Amino acid sequence: MPANLRRIGVLTGGGDCPGLNAVIRAVTKTAILRHQLDVFGIEDGFQGLIQNRIRPLLSDDVSNILTQGGTILGTNNKCDPRRYAVPDAAGKPVFLDVTDRCMEHFRLHQLDALIVIGGDGTMAVASHFVRQGINCIGVPKTIDNDLEGTDVTFGFATAVQVAAEALDRVHTTAASHHRAMIVEVMGRNAGWIALHAGVASGADVILIPEIPYSMDAVCRKVVDRSRHGKRFTILCVSEGAKPAGGRQVVRKVDPTSPDPIRLGGVGQVIADQIEQQTGIETRCTVLGHVQRGGTPVPDDRVLATQFGHAAFQALMSGKQNRLVVMKGRTVTDVDLLSIEGKQRLVPLEHPLVVSAKDVGTCFGE
Amino acid sequence: MPANLRRIGVLTGGGDCPGLNAVIRAVTKTAILRHQLDVFGIEDGFQGLIQNRIRPLLSDDVSNILTQGGTILGTNNKCDPRRYAVPDAAGKPVFLDVTDRCMEHFRLHQLDALIVIGGDGTMAVASHFVRQGINCIGVPKTIDNDLEGTDVTFGFATAVQVAAEALDRVHTTAASHHRAMIVEVMGRNAGWIALHAGVASGADVILIPEIPYSMDAVCRKVVDRSRHGKRFTILCVSEGAKPAGGRQVVRKVDPTSPDPIRLGGVGQVIADQIEQQTGIETRCTVLGHVQRGGTPVPDDRVLATQFGHAAFQALMSGKQNRLVVMKGRTVTDVDLLSIEGKQRLVPLEHPLVVSAKDVGTCFGE
Amino acid sequence: MPANLRRIGVLTGGGDCPGLNAVIRAVTKTAILRHQLDVFGIEDGFQGLIQNRIRPLLSDDVSNILTQGGTILGTNNKCDPRRYAVPDAAGKPVFLDVTDRCMEHFRLHQLDALIVIGGDGTMAVASHFVRQGINCIGVPKTIDNDLEGTDVTFGFATAVQVAAEALDRVHTTAASHHRAMIVEVMGRNAGWIALHAGVASGADVILIPEIPYSMDAVCRKVVDRSRHGKRFTILCVSEGAKPAGGRQVVRKVDPTSPDPIRLGGVGQVIADQIEQQTGIETRCTVLGHVQRGGTPVPDDRVLATQFGHAAFQALMSGKQNRLVVMKGRTVTDVDLLSIEGKQRLVPLEHPLVVSAKDVGTCFGE
Amino acid sequence: MPANLRRIGVLTGGGDCPGLNAVIRAVTKTAILRHQLDVFGIEDGFQGLIQNRIRPLLSDDVSNILTQGGTILGTNNKCDPRRYAVPDAAGKPVFLDVTDRCMEHFRLHQLDALIVIGGDGTMAVASHFVRQGINCIGVPKTIDNDLEGTDVTFGFATAVQVAAEALDRVHTTAASHHRAMIVEVMGRNAGWIALHAGVASGADVILIPEIPYSMDAVCRKVVDRSRHGKRFTILCVSEGAKPAGGRQVVRKVDPTSPDPIRLGGVGQVIADQIEQQTGIETRCTVLGHVQRGGTPVPDDRVLATQFGHAAFQALMSGKQNRLVVMKGRTVTDVDLLSIEGKQRLVPLEHPLVVSAKDVGTCFGE
Repeated sequence: MPANLRRIGVLTGGGDCPGLNAVIRAVTKTAILRHQLDVFGIEDGFQGLIQNRIRPLLSDDVSNILTQGGTILGTNNKCDPRRYAVPDAAGKPVFLDVTDRCMEHFRLHQLDALIVIGGDGTMAVASHFVRQGINCIGVPKTIDNDLEGTDVTFGFATAVQVAAEALDRVHTTAASHHRAMIVEVMGRNAGWIALHAGVASGADVILIPEIPYSMDAVCRKVVDRSRHGKRFTILCVSEGAKPAGGRQVVRKVDPTSPDPIRLGGVGQVIADQIEQQTGIETRCTVLGHVQRGGTPVPDDRVLATQFGHAAFQALMSGKQNRLVVMKGRTVTDVDLLSIEGKQRLVPLEHPLVVSAKDVGTCFGE
Repeated sequence: MPANLRRIGVLTGGGDCPGLNAVIRAVTKTAILRHQLDVFGIEDGFQGLIQNRIRPLLSDDVSNILTQGGTILGTNNKCDPRRYAVPDAAGKPVFLDVTDRCMEHFRLHQLDALIVIGGDGTMAVASHFVRQGINCIGVPKTIDNDLEGTDVTFGFATAVQVAAEALDRVHTTAASHHRAMIVEVMGRNAGWIALHAGVASGADVILIPEIPYSMDAVCRKVVDRSRHGKRFTILCVSEGAKPAGGRQVVRKVDPTSPDPIRLGGVGQVIADQIEQQTGIETRCTVLGHVQRGGTPVPDDRVLATQFGHAAFQALMSGKQNRLVVMKGRTVTDVDLLSIEGKQRLVPLEHPLVVSAKDVGTCFGE
Repeated sequence: MPANLRRIGVLTGGGDCPGLNAVIRAVTKTAILRHQLDVFGIEDGFQGLIQNRIRPLLSDDVSNILTQGGTILGTNNKCDPRRYAVPDAAGKPVFLDVTDRCMEHFRLHQLDALIVIGGDGTMAVASHFVRQGINCIGVPKTIDNDLEGTDVTFGFATAVQVAAEALDRVHTTAASHHRAMIVEVMGRNAGWIALHAGVASGADVILIPEIPYSMDAVCRKVVDRSRHGKRFTILCVSEGAKPAGGRQVVRKVDPTSPDPIRLGGVGQVIADQIEQQTGIETRCTVLGHVQRGGTPVPDDRVLATQFGHAAFQALMSGKQNRLVVMKGRTVTDVDLLSIEGKQRLVPLEHPLVVSAKDVGTCFGE
Repeated sequence: MPANLRRIGVLTGGGDCPGLNAVIRAVTKTAILRHQLDVFGIEDGFQGLIQNRIRPLLSDDVSNILTQGGTILGTNNKCDPRRYAVPDAAGKPVFLDVTDRCMEHFRLHQLDALIVIGGDGTMAVASHFVRQGINCIGVPKTIDNDLEGTDVTFGFATAVQVAAEALDRVHTTAASHHRAMIVEVMGRNAGWIALHAGVASGADVILIPEIPYSMDAVCRKVVDRSRHGKRFTILCVSEGAKPAGGRQVVRKVDPTSPDPIRLGGVGQVIADQIEQQTGIETRCTVLGHVQRGGTPVPDDRVLATQFGHAAFQALMSGKQNRLVVMKGRTVTDVDLLSIEGKQRLVPLEHPLVVSAKDVGTCFGE
């Protein structure tokens, strides 16, 4: 144990993700029960560091939180101390660098290291503090499972389960009504959730951002199934799926309209196009935030506990500026600065894509 | 047992609903095992009667379907034999009355009675056949729980469970992010799903069609909670909720747009308005079809079994043109023609509304 | 509102039951938010009254407990102030009447009324305090659903769901292995859980305490199914099921054995007998405590909220010594003293029993 | 593709396991849709090979089975063609080697290879047929996750989820009653289920076969928690857990008793001992068969699909006598004969054991 390691800060940044509390619990319990160190919770991500909202975490604070979704520390997916919005005299936001204020609060609480739980945005800020000389250990967090450097992230298994349950549910409706049914799931750049949930539920069509789709191929699949007597087609579509040669459909508000007008997401766009091209009734459900909230599935609780424990152990063994990761079935760590700006996408020839194709799934090619 | 009762037809009409198969199973098993009568399944609602798609149902056909969502007979929520769309020479739809064709197929299979499982649209068609002299026993079906004459319908408990689970999930995200979160649930005219799921999940705001809402009242609740240190507000909103004095927000496509443009549903509209009026970040999830598909919860399987059994028993005791209903905790029946066009709405002073208000829920008044 | 109603005590007694926290929350929120009264939580049932462990309940104490299983107040299923075990000098228990001590603590905290949430044992103690002049409003609680005076109790729907899920799971194993599978569920005197879960899961055999079973009838059913090509038989058995003419099988420890020896429960006994008489492999699972713990299903949360609210409203309207109950679909109340010692059993000709028989379920007769 | 590969047999052996149907579906769909080969299903494991119950599997046969538990082929966990029980003239079983009969049926259906899905017992029989010259590709199956050669097996994640949900449920009862609660889970020789479910649910004590327990250590933990104001202790115990220096507790029937007498399983034995040594009320639930039945969780469906696909691909690339396995996150294969009789146990210093200890879990040492 490093001699100068006595007080450790922990914060959660970015979007909600099932398993955050399991990480906080593992860090805190290991520190207190096993090594008699003190842990301090920083509230609402880096905002708590800026605003000096930092409080001790005791063993009782982390009792009974393992199965809870969300984060007892709060989070924030916009705050960057290098560009912190402060209202000027006229109330308009001015963007300031408040790194110094953070450093001051860090010293005020005599923190010796920081455990930062978050996605790529949060890690980019952590990297900034590493460059200021603060020892940061990162714990990767994203339900999208698209963080470079680790084979899997916690929260992903829960998101897949929620998405697969929704696919299972619409399955019966599709079959009863002779319909195509679309479930649009999360994944702006990476299609991992759609791929896993789609394979798990036997979706007939899976559209992911990494494989641009052709509407003709999609409609051909729908019509083929209908011709072969199948009463339904199930489509699992990433929110970031995009047509070949085309641009991605995005949600936007039409500011000139008297009523709030919205462009449908990609799922709804595809539903409309299927109906037009095939005449087969098609419905779309956008799962949205239910994918990132609520109690984590057991696998995510186990993984998050391992990551929290490993982050603390990295500190104890004197490591600096590492990101805890899972490689194969082994928890290890990589240089925190090495992953910046990199995203792990679904490779076109990923074995799961290949097996899905071989059992008859269409990827819209 | 009526002497002339030997062959019974059964069909499912209207939208998908968890428990349909449980009704079909109960009818078929009671008829075959207990009374040695024959049962015939009519496919895809009244469309099967028009197109003569009618097949015997044996005991094995209904094995292992009790827990399955959907309907093994298929359904159809548009077909009305009094106004049946047939393409003319130019391919344009002409609407014909094909009642005679139905009667012919009915006689062809020597059916002595019809068990019709469906909502108000389906019952309206059944009433038409009653007037043609066919003995129809109706089984009420709607996830919305808004059918006049019965205190409860199967499918409703499942829809409430799906909605409540979604509310539970977004709860943690709201709390982690200092947000308002809206879950829009089914219920175009009646707010039963929103009321029950909202009370079950402790939603802070419940908006139902029966109680027009004021945006000021809604925003006041959101701000009040924030002021009292609550980090979140959860809103459960019926798709048919409407502002006081205003008209209901509906989804529609803007046909003049190059891209499919859609007006946001009421949930999204309210989300935008909360953000504008309070500055508090607000997100909306529209649950959609996951509420009406998938395996029924145990209560719905029990209720559907009781309804199917009671429908058959009504036939056996010589009853004609009855709708099976639940009054209090007792299964009984009412005149099928008596409920036409009536809808059971949430009364303004319903005990559940009163108790929800007393524990602090805002109904937007 | 009665002039002398300012401070209200609330306690939970008897076994754990999903929905207890929802009742506590509804009582507390209604009292504080709506009527500005004070609520005091008594810990661990009547034991807290004896030991003066009584604390104010604030609105924040009951936030976020609606979906939690168990009771934040703790409970106790053995403590009776009329016969309270105190160790004597030699450490042996002496049983004292500590009613006076309870009355003293009741007066010390200036409680004006007591809301008592529990089953028949708890209500018997409450009746005792009613006779001492304390106004008690009872809220019925039992997962067994066998309390006289009310058509339904909270916790029951959750127990049924857990039992039905278990039955669904063993179903596939039975079918894969050509086996009979038994799930033993709670219900010592009343068979409501077995009846509802069994009907919900399509159990082939349902054995309940109210209908003594014949092993010959049970084995005949198992063999019949096997002969007709069915690969499995599913049995749902109440822990209190008993053979016709025989005595109930009970669990007991053989005190003379070097190792703890136990008589198998009724489920295991029946499994052994089926194997012996039919040669068909049979397995038994005893669900036990998982039926009474964990988050309540939405229906139970709604019902518990209504009951808690109604209990408080009964006090507000000046009522004394009432038990809140559900009659049909209406929450009302009955004389607390009128239900003592009465249990609501499954009537032999209950409609659900009749419909189950008609769809082919064997009740072992 | 090997020239002589046209007709492929598939069978499932050993106990029920969630995901079996997903493997059958992947094999069948890949063979038919992708390579136009014929697939034949052998019923009830090797028994179908002995009794010539072999039928073609078409694409429709494997539609809609992905999410179903169990196996559409049936299984058998006792049948070994090298020692097949046949009744003699007196009705007593005589054990015969019926390998020749199997080979005959294999040739009769002109099968070119066999895909065998099962555990170590099934693979031992497969190895026997490999030695007879039949090309067998094995797919590992065990909910216990203890098969040598692969890092993970399908069915395991589902078993863990069922066990973790039970632990979550009893948690609230334990907390409400000041109790110790034990959940006994599957795992006769390997503690993987107990380890994962216990960590996922934050069990205070986890007892696995690999780490012999001391009752003193267990009771010390229970008492310590009670002293520190914790109202409960949760224990997750493998059925194969055994005391240090002692022999494993096994279930057995006392044949001399008039009633069926059973020795309690290890969970009940430990419950009794905790009550005796500490005076703290303790309850035990034995989960049993619900852990191995029912619909697989999404992860198991994905894994089983990958394994089924890989098994078929191994055949296509001309491989012989391989076992499909997962190494890290990669599906690959190993020599089928190399794993015979080897079991993968939890290493004493497994990272999950270490992290569980560091967050305060007692392993009974």
